Formats: sequence, C-alpha cells, structure tokens
Amino acid sequence: MKPTLQTLGEDALIARLLQQVPLASDPLAAPGDDCAAIDAGQGMLQLLKTDALVEHVHFLPTAKPRQVGWKAAARVVSDFAAMGGVPEHFLVTLAVPHDCPVAWLDQLYRGIGDCLRAFGATVAGGETTRVPAHSARVISIAATGRAAKKHLVLRSGGRAGDVLFVTGKLGGSLKGRHLTFTPRIAEAAWLVQHAKPSAMMDLSDGLAKDLPRLAAASACGFQLDPANVPRHRGCTLAQALGDGEDFELLFSVPARKAQQLLETWPGNLAPLSAIGKLVPAGEGMDLTGGWDHFG
Amino acid sequence: MKPTLQTLGEDALIARLLQQVPLASDPLAAPGDDCAAIDAGQGMLQLLKTDALVEHVHFLPTAKPRQVGWKAAARVVSDFAAMGGVPEHFLVTLAVPHDCPVAWLDQLYRGIGDCLRAFGATVAGGETTRVPAHSARVISIAATGRAAKKHLVLRSGGRAGDVLFVTGKLGGSLKGRHLTFTPRIAEAAWLVQHAKPSAMMDLSDGLAKDLPRLAAASACGFQLDPANVPRHRGCTLAQALGDGEDFELLFSVPARKAQQLLETWPGNLAPLSAIGKLVPAGEGMDLTGGWDHFG
Repeated sequence: MKPTLQTLGEDALIARLLQQVPLASDPLAAPGDDCAAIDAGQGMLQLLKTDALVEHVHFLPTAKPRQVGWKAAARVVSDFAAMGGVPEHFLVTLAVPHDCPVAWLDQLYRGIGDCLRAFGATVAGGETTRVPAHSARVISIAATGRAAKKHLVLRSGGRAGDVLFVTGKLGGSLKGRHLTFTPRIAEAAWLVQHAKPSAMMDLSDGLAKDLPRLAAASACGFQLDPANVPRHRGCTLAQALGDGEDFELLFSVPARKAQQLLETWPGNLAPLSAIGKLVPAGEGMDLTGGWDHFG
Repeated sequence: MKPTLQTLGEDALIARLLQQVPLASDPLAAPGDDCAAIDAGQGMLQLLKTDALVEHVHFLPTAKPRQVGWKAAARVVSDFAAMGGVPEHFLVTLAVPHDCPVAWLDQLYRGIGDCLRAFGATVAGGETTRVPAHSARVISIAATGRAAKKHLVLRSGGRAGDVLFVTGKLGGSLKGRHLTFTPRIAEAAWLVQHAKPSAMMDLSDGLAKDLPRLAAASACGFQLDPANVPRHRGCTLAQALGDGEDFELLFSVPARKAQQLLETWPGNLAPLSAIGKLVPAGEGMDLTGGWDHFG
C-alpha cells in the first residue's frame, strides 16, 4: 500500500521530505525543534520560523478576523519563546479567494499588528495571492527572531531525572483561548536568565503528543503525574492532555534546581506546575491522544 | 460600494494593510521592493522574502511536482538576484489536502532541492499542514538572503535619462518556462560588481505591469522601444509585455555607462537588450496589461 499523509504522520513526513533537500551544515537546532537557529556571530543566534493557519482547520470562517490575526502571529512568537528567544521581523503571506472582503483582511492585519506591538516585533514584508473560489483561506507567517547563544534551549537537552514543568493551565482551547492566548515570552525570558531549562518546547499539539516528542528528542522516557497536570476550569484530564493549542511552555530542569525554581518564580508570571520527570529511555509510560495535522 | 480585492488591486491592498501593523523603522527597502533589507552590520544586509505558489493559479494539478518545487524556490532566488543579493536559508510551508500523494510531495521537495543546490542555499525549516478536501494546494516559501550594502539595488534609484535593460527574452512563459526558468543570480552578481544599476527588479507580472512600477518607484516616467523588446520565438509583442512570469531582470543604468555595459557584458550570461529609457515624471507613455493577482 502506498503511504498517505494519514498513515505516515507529520513527523515521519517531514523527516522523509528533508532527505530531498540540502540542509544547513552544522545546524544549532534539529528539524524537530520549534525554530531553526543560525549562528549570527558575537554570541547571538538568528531564529527562523514559519507557521500557517488554514480556514476550517485552525480557525472557523465565523472567527473574528482580528483574533485570527493575533493567533497567526502569536503562534510564531510562542515558538521563539520556546527556544529562549524574542521575535523580530515578520513576513505575512495571505492566500485568499478573490471575493474575500477587504474589511476581513483589514481586521486580520490589525490583529497581527496587536500581537507584534505587544511583543516588540515588526512587519518587514509580505505577499497577497489568490486561491481558487471556495478554497480555504491560508495565512502563512514567517519570521526572524534572536536569542543569545548562551540562552538557547532545545528539545534535546533533557536528562533522566530532570523535573518536568508546564506554565499556565491546559485544555479547552477550542472554547476561544486558541485565538487569544498570550505567548510565554516573559516566562521564557525569566527562565533562561534565572533557571535555564535543560529542554523546552511550546505545547501546540497537546501534552499527550508534545511530551513524548520532548522526551524522545532528549533520548529519555517520561513519567507524568496526572493529578498535577494543571487544567482549565471544566476540563477533564483527557482534554488537558489532548485538546492542543495551549501554547504553554513545557520544560525540564535538573532535579537539584527544581525546588528553588518553584520558590523564586515571580508571582506576576503564569503559574508553574511540576507535572512529572524524565526517566531513562525505555522506562516510564506512554501517552496517546493529541493533534496530528493529517490525522 | 465596498472595495473588493478585484476593485482595489494588489498594490493598493498591500499599502492599505501595512497601515495596520508596526513596520521596521528606517527600512532600507520599501514595501514595494522585491525583498525586505535589514542592516546586519559590518557592511552586510540580510534580505527577507516570502512567496507562495497556489494550485490552479500558479501551477496546474497536472504540472510535474519536481518542476513546481523548482519554481517555488526559483521565484524567491530571483527576488534576491533583483536586489543584488544571493539566497541563504529557506523555510518551506506545505498546505495540502490529506489525500495528497506522498510521492507528489517527495518530488516537490526534490525540485526545491534541485534549485537550492544550484544556487548554494539550504533548507533551515518548514511545516506541513492540512487544508480541507478540495482546497487548492499552497506552497509558501520564506527565505533569508544576503547582499553587501554597497551592492544593494532598489526599484527607486532610477533617474530620468537612465537607459532601461532586460536580460534574456520575454513572453510565452505558460508554454512551460514558468516552471523551469533560471533565476538571474549570475547576471545580477556581475552587474553589481561591474555596472551597478540605478534601479532593478525581476519581471514576475509582465513588463507592462512591472516597468510602470519601477518607473513610479523611481519617480519617473518611461519610454519603451517596442521593437527592441526581446521576444521568445513565436511570441507577439503583447505576449512579451503581458504574459508575465519571465523572471528576467529589468534594470536602469545611467546613459553614460550604457554603451560600455553592452560592450563588456560577458558572453556566457543571458543576453542583454536596451529597451528604452526613464524620462521625467508625467512624460513618456502608458502601458496596460500584465498580471494582477486578484484580476
């Protein structure tokens, strides 16, 4: 049977496609990390990220366009936070049918502007193009960011015994939070300066999908304490694990630093929860659920 | 009557949308230029570009996917050439229905790889996402490039009296050349070192649409010598002016340097044609035709 996108899955598809192209030599971040990281000299890295929102998949036609714009930009900002960086220059590609109301695009851009102003980034360019009538609207955002080389956090640096944390609460994003969330730039900035994580990512596809990814990238297994998973009001554990689009930070910290982290974590940041630990590969537990882009 | 994308047009739409977002302060290139240019220090610029290909709009479902991949990457390479730069790191976003054959994506990526290898660039990251069934496939490419600051060429530097040149031949791209063209990196590199143009762009929407853009950006009018417009075999003048997707370079050079340019132009590069001149604003001629993305 020929492989399809559904049987192959997103991670395997990307690994397969990357065999066809020349890759940056000696990359500082693996293809599975939240952003690419390029050495920019003088102790700095340039971060690169692209992310697309598709109508009917990531937002409904009835969603407020200003919130869709916020989401499109905030997802990318969240990826920079996940690597210990901040956003800089954005490129915005809009692919829409010719009958798309200009007022909808105005509001979409206004939402993008809301987000970029909130996080000190700017638009450097973009493109508009037509899709056929009745095709879904696509908003593709590419952006550059920066991080001090010493602050870079990858998914792959976790070690067995490290304590796992998440910021904020999980689950129920579809009630609206997936359009209005706050990227955890402030939390990431505090972390890389005061308690640099050994591994970090942002939760886009749900803890059930993303935690195994972080553990695998770190060549570890994991042990999750279900009772400690912070849930939004009214959410079951399954929803907290599987809904996705939380855009909270998941990170690991060496056990000897975990207690101090909890004691010094500033009260004005999103709350912190210790949810488990990394364990040796082959030990620990499995998780199922979460969001596959072709599932 | 409320404005629609068709009545507004692409250039006016972009100008309107950019009012909604924070823009890079003191940009080195205007939103209308082929790329954004960011000062990278030490006499270098970083170029940023995003460009999307849409099924049914930029390629047919029957097109060879390896050629579609070449085109997707080569369009962006061409934009870097148009600014006097070279490509570096690419981010590839694929938005396709879940029944898109994996073999099609393999070949698409192979074509992207063909182009990046040919021009010394690499893939730094990317994303795959689903669009609803029956929605058009969208390939969105974002990339960074670099140019020496002293080599940067904008659309806006032309002066009345400058001679206008194009590389190669124009027209008939839909017969297949729009999928297989060679970005004019070598020609641009020679130009910025030996006869730096006063203004330059690549011809993506047809000379009839792009020449007025270059002239307007330079606050000039233009005079075109129709007999000197280089045409591909079998193409009428209207096709050479209006078909679009030539991806040749259009540039202006001060009149006193034009003859020497023609005499020293290397024989192994695409042929050069002097096709007219820039004139004072309000003088010269009009052109109609060319490709509007929402027309």
